[in-house]
Amino acid sequence: MDSKDVKQDASCCSPVCVHNPHLDALKDDVLYHFSLGTGTHDLPAMFGDVKFVCVGGSPWRMKSFIEYIAAELSMEDPKAEYPNICAGTDRYAMYKVGPVLSVSHGMGIPSIAIMLHELIKLLHHAHCTDVTIIRIGTSGGIGLEPGTVVVTKQSVDATFLPKFEQVILGKTVVRNTDLDQSLAEELLQCSKELSQFETVLGNTMCTLDFYEGQARLDGAFCSYTENDKQDYLNKAKEARVCNIEMESSVFAAMCKLSGLRAAVVCVTLLDRLKGDQLSSSHEVLHSYQQRPQILVGSYIKKQLKAKAAHK
Amino acid sequence: MDSKDVKQDASCCSPVCVHNPHLDALKDDVLYHFSLGTGTHDLPAMFGDVKFVCVGGSPWRMKSFIEYIAAELSMEDPKAEYPNICAGTDRYAMYKVGPVLSVSHGMGIPSIAIMLHELIKLLHHAHCTDVTIIRIGTSGGIGLEPGTVVVTKQSVDATFLPKFEQVILGKTVVRNTDLDQSLAEELLQCSKELSQFETVLGNTMCTLDFYEGQARLDGAFCSYTENDKQDYLNKAKEARVCNIEMESSVFAAMCKLSGLRAAVVCVTLLDRLKGDQLSSSHEVLHSYQQRPQILVGSYIKKQLKAKAAHK
Repeated sequence: MDSKDVKQDASCCSPVCVHNPHLDALKDDVLYHFSLGTGTHDLPAMFGDVKFVCVGGSPWRMKSFIEYIAAELSMEDPKAEYPNICAGTDRYAMYKVGPVLSVSHGMGIPSIAIMLHELIKLLHHAHCTDVTIIRIGTSGGIGLEPGTVVVTKQSVDATFLPKFEQVILGKTVVRNTDLDQSLAEELLQCSKELSQFETVLGNTMCTLDFYEGQARLDGAFCSYTENDKQDYLNKAKEARVCNIEMESSVFAAMCKLSGLRAAVVCVTLLDRLKGDQLSSSHEVLHSYQQRPQILVGSYIKKQLKAKAAHK
Repeated sequence: MDSKDVKQDASCCSPVCVHNPHLDALKDDVLYHFSLGTGTHDLPAMFGDVKFVCVGGSPWRMKSFIEYIAAELSMEDPKAEYPNICAGTDRYAMYKVGPVLSVSHGMGIPSIAIMLHELIKLLHHAHCTDVTIIRIGTSGGIGLEPGTVVVTKQSVDATFLPKFEQVILGKTVVRNTDLDQSLAEELLQCSKELSQFETVLGNTMCTLDFYEGQARLDGAFCSYTENDKQDYLNKAKEARVCNIEMESSVFAAMCKLSGLRAAVVCVTLLDRLKGDQLSSSHEVLHSYQQRPQILVGSYIKKQLKAKAAHK
C-alpha cells in the first residue's frame, strides 16, 4: 500500500482516501467507537462540508476548542450548546461548527489509531474533499521555555528515526511519518503574525510510554540514573527533537496514507532537562494548553477569509 | 529490575512495590493524570483500606461497576451518588466503595500504562497491602460464542509469545506477562458456581492496533485478504489464543513487577472467525459487558465473606 494515487494538488478536489477493497462489500459500516454508522446516520449530510479537523487527547479540551472556534468565526449562537456528536459512547467526543470538526483521541498511539481509522472512513463516506487535519496537544519540551509551541517538522521514534512500525498479521511494516511541510510553514507564519507566544519548528519524539519511555525519574519503576536520563534527552536534542508526546507518529503515517494535509501543534508544559513532574499551577498549565488552540484558530480563520475573498 | 523481592505469600502482609529509588527524593509526588498528589491529598486516609482494584477501558462502565458492587456488598446508599475521585481531570475516572476501587484506563497499552504507573504509586503512598487487581474488559473472541467470558491464562503478543516489550532510553527491555494462576482458577470456580454464562481459561492476544493489528478487514486501510486473515487467526487459535484485546500484556507485566495479584477477565463481543464489525444491538452488547462485572462482583463478595468469617 502506498499513497501514490493520492492527489495532493490543492487546486483540484482532493478526496479522503481509504485503501481497503473490502469496504465496498460492507452493506453498512459501523463506526463503533464513534457510535455512528452508514446505516444509521446520513454521514454526507452531517459531515460533507468539513474542511478542518482538529484532534487532541482530552475531550474537555476539544469541547473548549469548538466553543473557541465558534466565537472566532463569529458562528457562535450564545444560546447554543455544542452537542457531542458521539454522545452514544464514552470512547471519544466529537463537536462540529461550520466546516470545523473537533475530535478527542485519548492518550497513546493505539487510542488515536482507532479514532483515525474511523475518522478517515467517516470523511470518506461523507465525500469530504480538501481536508486539513491538525493535532493540537501537550508535550514535554527539551531545552525550551515551558509554554513554547512546537510545530512538528518530523515525527521520530524513541531511537530518533522518522518511522512508525505497524504490526500487521504479526509482521512489522514500517511507515513514513512525513507531515505537510507547507502547512507547517503556514502555521509558523501565522504564529509570527499573532505574536502572542514563542513558536518553533522542530522534530517531535513519539513514545509508547509516558514514564520509562520518556526517561522520567518519577514513575512506579525506574532502573536508570539522572545522568542516564540527561544523556538520552541530550541525544534527542542533538537529533533536533524539541518535544516528546505519544501520538504524532501514527497520526502522520495514517494521514499521509489517506491524503490528508496534516500538522502537529503541541505546547510544551515543562522543560524535561529540568524536571519530570507537571507541578505548575492549574491556571498556568491551562493557559499553555490554550496556545495551540489560539494558533490553529487563527490559521483556520485566515484560510476561510482567503477562500471567501477568492470566490 | 525483577520482582524477586516481592512477597507473594498471601498469609502475611504483601505491600504494593514501587521500584524507583528516586521517588524518596521527591518532596511531593503529583499524580498528574489522576489530578491527585501526596502534597494535596491524604492518600493513606483516602485509599489505605483498598483491597480490590478493578480497571476497565470505559469510564461509564467503571462507574456502573461501582454502583453494581455497592449493591452487591449491601454498601449502597440509595441517596448517594458515587463521586468521581478524579473529577479534576478528564484523563481517567475513579470511584470507590469500601475496599473496592474502580478506575478507567482508556484504550491501548500506553493509556493503561500511564494509569498503572500512577495507580501503583497511589497504592504505595497509601500503604495498601494484599491488593488484588482485575481488569474487566471487552475483546474479540476466536472460535467462541459471543458473550463468552475469558479469564486470561497468559497474555501473548501479536506473534503469540508471552512477552511485553518496554522501550527504555531507546532500548527494548522484554518483560514477563505472567498473571496469578491461582486467582484465575478462583475466578473460574466462581463462574461455575454462578452458572449464568460460559467462562473459559485461555490465552489472550494483546495488540497495539484494533484494525490492521487484529487482522480486521474493515479499517481505513487493509492490504490483506480474507484468507490471510483466517490463516492468522487460526494460527492464533492453535497457540491457544481465545480472545484479542489491547491492554493485557502491559497490565500483566506492571502488576507482576509491583507484586499485585492480577487477573484479566474479558467478555468476547463477537467471533472474529465470523466477522469484524460490532453490529450486535446496543442491548446485547451491553448485557455481554455486564458479565465480567457480575463475575468479579461475585468473587469480591465471596472473598470478603470468607475474610469476615475468618476474623
